[in-house]
Amino acid sequence: MEPDNLNKEQDQNSWAVNAWTLLSKLRDQSPLIQCITNFVSMDLMANTLLSAGASPAMIHSIEEIQDFTPHVHALCINVGTLSPAWLPAMREAAQVANKAGKPWVLDPVAAGASSFRLKACLELVGLKPSVIRGNGSEIIALSKASIGATKGVDSSHESMDAMEAAKSLAQSSGAIVAVSGAVDIVTDGHRVVGAHNGVSMMQKITATGCAVTALIAAFVAVDPLHALEATASALSIFGIAGEMGMAMAKGPASLRMHLIDSVYNLDQAAVSSRLKVTSL
Amino acid sequence: MEPDNLNKEQDQNSWAVNAWTLLSKLRDQSPLIQCITNFVSMDLMANTLLSAGASPAMIHSIEEIQDFTPHVHALCINVGTLSPAWLPAMREAAQVANKAGKPWVLDPVAAGASSFRLKACLELVGLKPSVIRGNGSEIIALSKASIGATKGVDSSHESMDAMEAAKSLAQSSGAIVAVSGAVDIVTDGHRVVGAHNGVSMMQKITATGCAVTALIAAFVAVDPLHALEATASALSIFGIAGEMGMAMAKGPASLRMHLIDSVYNLDQAAVSSRLKVTSL
Amino acid sequence: MEPDNLNKEQDQNSWAVNAWTLLSKLRDQSPLIQCITNFVSMDLMANTLLSAGASPAMIHSIEEIQDFTPHVHALCINVGTLSPAWLPAMREAAQVANKAGKPWVLDPVAAGASSFRLKACLELVGLKPSVIRGNGSEIIALSKASIGATKGVDSSHESMDAMEAAKSLAQSSGAIVAVSGAVDIVTDGHRVVGAHNGVSMMQKITATGCAVTALIAAFVAVDPLHALEATASALSIFGIAGEMGMAMAKGPASLRMHLIDSVYNLDQAAVSSRLKVTSL
Repeated sequence: MEPDNLNKEQDQNSWAVNAWTLLSKLRDQSPLIQCITNFVSMDLMANTLLSAGASPAMIHSIEEIQDFTPHVHALCINVGTLSPAWLPAMREAAQVANKAGKPWVLDPVAAGASSFRLKACLELVGLKPSVIRGNGSEIIALSKASIGATKGVDSSHESMDAMEAAKSLAQSSGAIVAVSGAVDIVTDGHRVVGAHNGVSMMQKITATGCAVTALIAAFVAVDPLHALEATASALSIFGIAGEMGMAMAKGPASLRMHLIDSVYNLDQAAVSSRLKVTSL
Repeated sequence: MEPDNLNKEQDQNSWAVNAWTLLSKLRDQSPLIQCITNFVSMDLMANTLLSAGASPAMIHSIEEIQDFTPHVHALCINVGTLSPAWLPAMREAAQVANKAGKPWVLDPVAAGASSFRLKACLELVGLKPSVIRGNGSEIIALSKASIGATKGVDSSHESMDAMEAAKSLAQSSGAIVAVSGAVDIVTDGHRVVGAHNGVSMMQKITATGCAVTALIAAFVAVDPLHALEATASALSIFGIAGEMGMAMAKGPASLRMHLIDSVYNLDQAAVSSRLKVTSL
Repeated sequence: MEPDNLNKEQDQNSWAVNAWTLLSKLRDQSPLIQCITNFVSMDLMANTLLSAGASPAMIHSIEEIQDFTPHVHALCINVGTLSPAWLPAMREAAQVANKAGKPWVLDPVAAGASSFRLKACLELVGLKPSVIRGNGSEIIALSKASIGATKGVDSSHESMDAMEAAKSLAQSSGAIVAVSGAVDIVTDGHRVVGAHNGVSMMQKITATGCAVTALIAAFVAVDPLHALEATASALSIFGIAGEMGMAMAKGPASLRMHLIDSVYNLDQAAVSSRLKVTSL
């Protein structure tokens, strides 16, 4: 084997070992993940977290933030079905998480769909999330601070088109930025890695993007000091589960079932043999 | 073959060809469907739309209507878990859709369950939906403008009992009216057709009615000038997927999965051989 | 066979006969169950009720309570995603149900997660629910009227640890109290029975606790004068369906599907051979 290929293989191995270690920790520690999320995603998000070993809590009322949020291990904020009444709690939860030193992750669903939504997302970006995960159109909308790039909640851009936007957003916000797509991109503004696992039919299941953002929160909860690696690991694990689920699926609904079952059943052999993360 | 039977068979064929054409267009064009819907149905509705090829967006905040609704291809309004705070956005979205020339579809869930709900539904009917789809009890409640005909969200009337109510409501509202039941009825107030596909166990899955209303919105989006035909086609396609799902199902939850998979996998042969629409 | 074992077997038989009788009544009468519940659970709760033969109605707006609640056969109130706007409707629905002589059931999700939530739950307990079902941590929080015993929505206590708390809460509230766990406990404050069916993987599916509380409401609807027996029967039926589902499941998501299918398909033979309720 050529030295270069050897290095790449060693890299793959170390990514796979790290992803497996984080998943094992997650199963062992069962971190409490608070999710302030949209109505569409709550079921799949909670079931994704449970299948991975985490303990989800969908608690969104501002009256509860001061009592509850300091005790969580990570917070996930998703603006999918945003309305003005929910924003103050999102803001306060992010601030309480920051103060308590707990990581929090932002999913800027359909950021470019309206001025109201864009403004809300930009404000949340300013509250120092550890990670921001979106699709290409969402990350471009955030980076340019302009609406119209989004077609509803589905992306009209491939992740690669958003690479410069992602780097720029990571630099300006201080967050790790992840862009979902055929290849998922993860960047801290300088370094860029690509997570290659997954199948395209996952886009035909509602809330898979939301669910993987919550999984990122769970991975960052068990390794808060390495948010880029934790993010790439969560994306890889979810993608591998999607590939394994796809082998049994007959369509999007059976894929959804097998995907969650596969997250639950994932073992080290599958992670080792399937995980593919590269430098971009 | 007798001439009459021959004509009927030709009719079936043309309905089947039309339904298949619309489904193909839907898969090709992936229309953006805004859904302002109840909390129970969001997951199944989004997954039904995705499996059929449409792009769902569950965006309900009044702050976003002016920016977002003009860009959608159709709008679905469902009053399932209605509360006063949601009504102004429903009203405004309907008005913006009308102004932008986009079709919108109303699902008057449990219209007769309370005066508040009936009044809200009647007001929405007055905002010129392209299509209204409900069960027998809901259509009777709307047509008579009286409460008490509904047992919760499940119908206590067969669709045939509601035929006159449906015609009357279609005439007074200008909408196509569809009544779900063992036979689904679709009328413009004069012509009445029956869509015969489907299986009774679909009533044991929550939100199948809501989901097919959203599918109607997607079909009307790709053929807005023939809303009656688009509505009957959507009901037929969903019913056929239910029949195919039923062949693999062991109960309501596996039927739900196979139903969505079947919407995704539906091919022309299945539509041709199974679709049954008749004049009533 | 020893006389003691003979008595126990007769006891099992009479529990099994009673549970089967109640499930048969439920399928026959299809009681209307109003659910004011959290966003995460709505789908699974509605599907659980439908698969058991009941007719669910997720109607939560205070504007509808006076018209609608008097006509329901039972009411289920679940505080999972509580916010202040929902509390007045919960209060009013409980009061209208009481006035109309309809049973209502409380699910105090994460009762100890915040002062706001605990206060709301205690107020609802004061409105005379027929049954309260929670996990160990929730029942302890209610009984001690103190926060901090709950780790989010998942219990950090086994049901047996909560036995004294459950008895004390039953005595002070007048409600039947059920505590879910490896063994489900049901008590009226004096008598205590254990329902032993179920599998641990059910805890890896979100909202199974919420769903069984709604099923309790449906069982109490068909036998309101024997709420302890109806509660133990509902817990047993759901547990048996879980066991049967587990035989076909490959993980939490397929278990969820097979569980609901099994509730739908459950027959007398399965209930007779599997049901296990004991005096504790």
